[in-house]
Amino acid sequence: MTIFTRPILEINLQNLLANYKLLSELAPHSIPAAVVKDDAYGLGAEKVAEMLYAHTGCRHFFVAHGVEGAIVRNVAPEAEIYVLQGMGEDSLAEFQKHRLTPVVSCPQQLEFWKKHRIAGVRPLIHVETGLNRLGFRESELAALSAEDKKEFSFVMSHLACADEQGHFMNARQLETFRRLKDKYFPELPASLSASDGVFLGTEYQFDMVRLGAAIYGINTAPYRENHMQSLLALKAPVLQVEDLPEGSFVGYSATYRANSPRRIAIVSIGYGDGLPRSLSNVGKVFFKSNDKRAEARIIGRISMDNVICDVTGLNVGVGDWAYLLDENYTLDDMGRDAGTIAYEVVSRLGKNPRFDRRV
Amino acid sequence: MTIFTRPILEINLQNLLANYKLLSELAPHSIPAAVVKDDAYGLGAEKVAEMLYAHTGCRHFFVAHGVEGAIVRNVAPEAEIYVLQGMGEDSLAEFQKHRLTPVVSCPQQLEFWKKHRIAGVRPLIHVETGLNRLGFRESELAALSAEDKKEFSFVMSHLACADEQGHFMNARQLETFRRLKDKYFPELPASLSASDGVFLGTEYQFDMVRLGAAIYGINTAPYRENHMQSLLALKAPVLQVEDLPEGSFVGYSATYRANSPRRIAIVSIGYGDGLPRSLSNVGKVFFKSNDKRAEARIIGRISMDNVICDVTGLNVGVGDWAYLLDENYTLDDMGRDAGTIAYEVVSRLGKNPRFDRRV
Repeated sequence: MTIFTRPILEINLQNLLANYKLLSELAPHSIPAAVVKDDAYGLGAEKVAEMLYAHTGCRHFFVAHGVEGAIVRNVAPEAEIYVLQGMGEDSLAEFQKHRLTPVVSCPQQLEFWKKHRIAGVRPLIHVETGLNRLGFRESELAALSAEDKKEFSFVMSHLACADEQGHFMNARQLETFRRLKDKYFPELPASLSASDGVFLGTEYQFDMVRLGAAIYGINTAPYRENHMQSLLALKAPVLQVEDLPEGSFVGYSATYRANSPRRIAIVSIGYGDGLPRSLSNVGKVFFKSNDKRAEARIIGRISMDNVICDVTGLNVGVGDWAYLLDENYTLDDMGRDAGTIAYEVVSRLGKNPRFDRRV
Repeated sequence: MTIFTRPILEINLQNLLANYKLLSELAPHSIPAAVVKDDAYGLGAEKVAEMLYAHTGCRHFFVAHGVEGAIVRNVAPEAEIYVLQGMGEDSLAEFQKHRLTPVVSCPQQLEFWKKHRIAGVRPLIHVETGLNRLGFRESELAALSAEDKKEFSFVMSHLACADEQGHFMNARQLETFRRLKDKYFPELPASLSASDGVFLGTEYQFDMVRLGAAIYGINTAPYRENHMQSLLALKAPVLQVEDLPEGSFVGYSATYRANSPRRIAIVSIGYGDGLPRSLSNVGKVFFKSNDKRAEARIIGRISMDNVICDVTGLNVGVGDWAYLLDENYTLDDMGRDAGTIAYEVVSRLGKNPRFDRRV
């Protein structure tokens, strides 16, 4: 028996390439841009962008902030790097130094751009079609001069409900996007869909699709089976195994009570590692031996550094590995059990500095 | 008007010193150890430990993992650094190099220690008193030899319900701890309480208290008013302000519908920055001008990079700052609104690499 104390996060970037390829083939007439914002959803933007740039020919990347674009530029010297939150006083230097392309979302951002144009760069314009987040409203589009409209290289918008195939918002946003594009930017290439929109059909795909969550293995079309491959395995060592007498309480605030004698394992991972605390008394961990996979329920509150699980009847000992994520319990599963979505889970776990990361 | 795009996290370490001092005075006969695990709850263990070491004379630190201890050792050359998750094959090198002190929690960890003793280091022993997490059970204590018992420098345990003054578990754990200590380690100094236990009274304080959450401003005794000072201000810029016609939907899955005409602000921060997504349609942001403080409700789902809030009737424009945390809306408030606890909130926000951090 060996003692281990530290969780390990394994990231399989071969599966990233497979997912990117599969999605690209679903939109064969569109440029397949990669969304690597938020440090590639926590998985490491530098490595992810480098892999896509080198092995798939991807030459279009989306990030949220200028600082994120600078990281991508280091590994993608010839790519277009679009910055969704736009350009500001606090990011101008990065835009200039790294030739980043702002997504311009409102008249004030356009004014700022016109004061600080970057040679060789032509922004995207973001038009609002129903999400009511960033983007020009129609009254603002109508106020643009003919000169203003020539600033842009692309027109884009974003869908609100594309993960629900039959949602009325999809058709409504598609119709609005077509109408605004035809009226204000008839000559410009267009982009409407992220990963989820790709699955809605070719009419949603336009000239560029923005592939994010799905290339990281998340099911963005939950009404159909997931064909994306999981990139992540997360495991943590068992520090201690104990018999729990009937009537014992477990964890902070004593939220679990043993109603019969149980056997528990204390696993060295907690919400300090990015595990959602809302998995308390709800989530699951898995143990593997000889191809057999055993499931153990998380009991009591998850604490900063530990989770406790019920291993009654299982052959689990100190030094064994508990799997928090694997190919059979994915980000989507954990998101569901935690009452949130896979995107939030991966953004938290992926960026956690405490893991021993193995890419 | 200036355009900004990036959130700013301000960390006030003067308030850390004030909180540490106040808590130390509440336990005047105990060593006031500082708990700086999980990167000092996300606030930066190196800087936090350095401040405490230089300005308060703190010489006892607790971390969770060996890698965390190595960081503290760099700034606290003469301190005792205790590692709560213990020592393992995967952290042995750090223990040896940085003279870290393991907290030994089970017989297997004791065996491992006896194979890998470090000169000049004497471990703590963790005994289980009711939390049913890490720690020797009584049967395991009874099996220790007289020689084994001499390995240790301190005996510790941890309270499960110390944030509830009247909880029956407090008295039960105190009694168990006293009994086990007197029976198995009558000579050793002892530590039972973290921040929350300090407020339960002198009988809970023993020879060392482990001050964590409260020195970071969290109210660990929520049955009384918080006397700790907040360390954090978090603000993000408004990217866009728009009028929202009646009947419009906002955000993913259209979970908010405007039942009257509203005015909305799109703020450049999201769950990708560590903001809990469970604040969707529930949380608040604040705007400040001329000493006036205006409150705006978060509407729709929080997305990775943005939150949208209702600023109807407020004087808010592009480039203004929205406060997510300040001295009047603290980690405890956000934790409550998000359906979790301040500890999880700060651990996520604090470690986020996207912020412009100002310490």
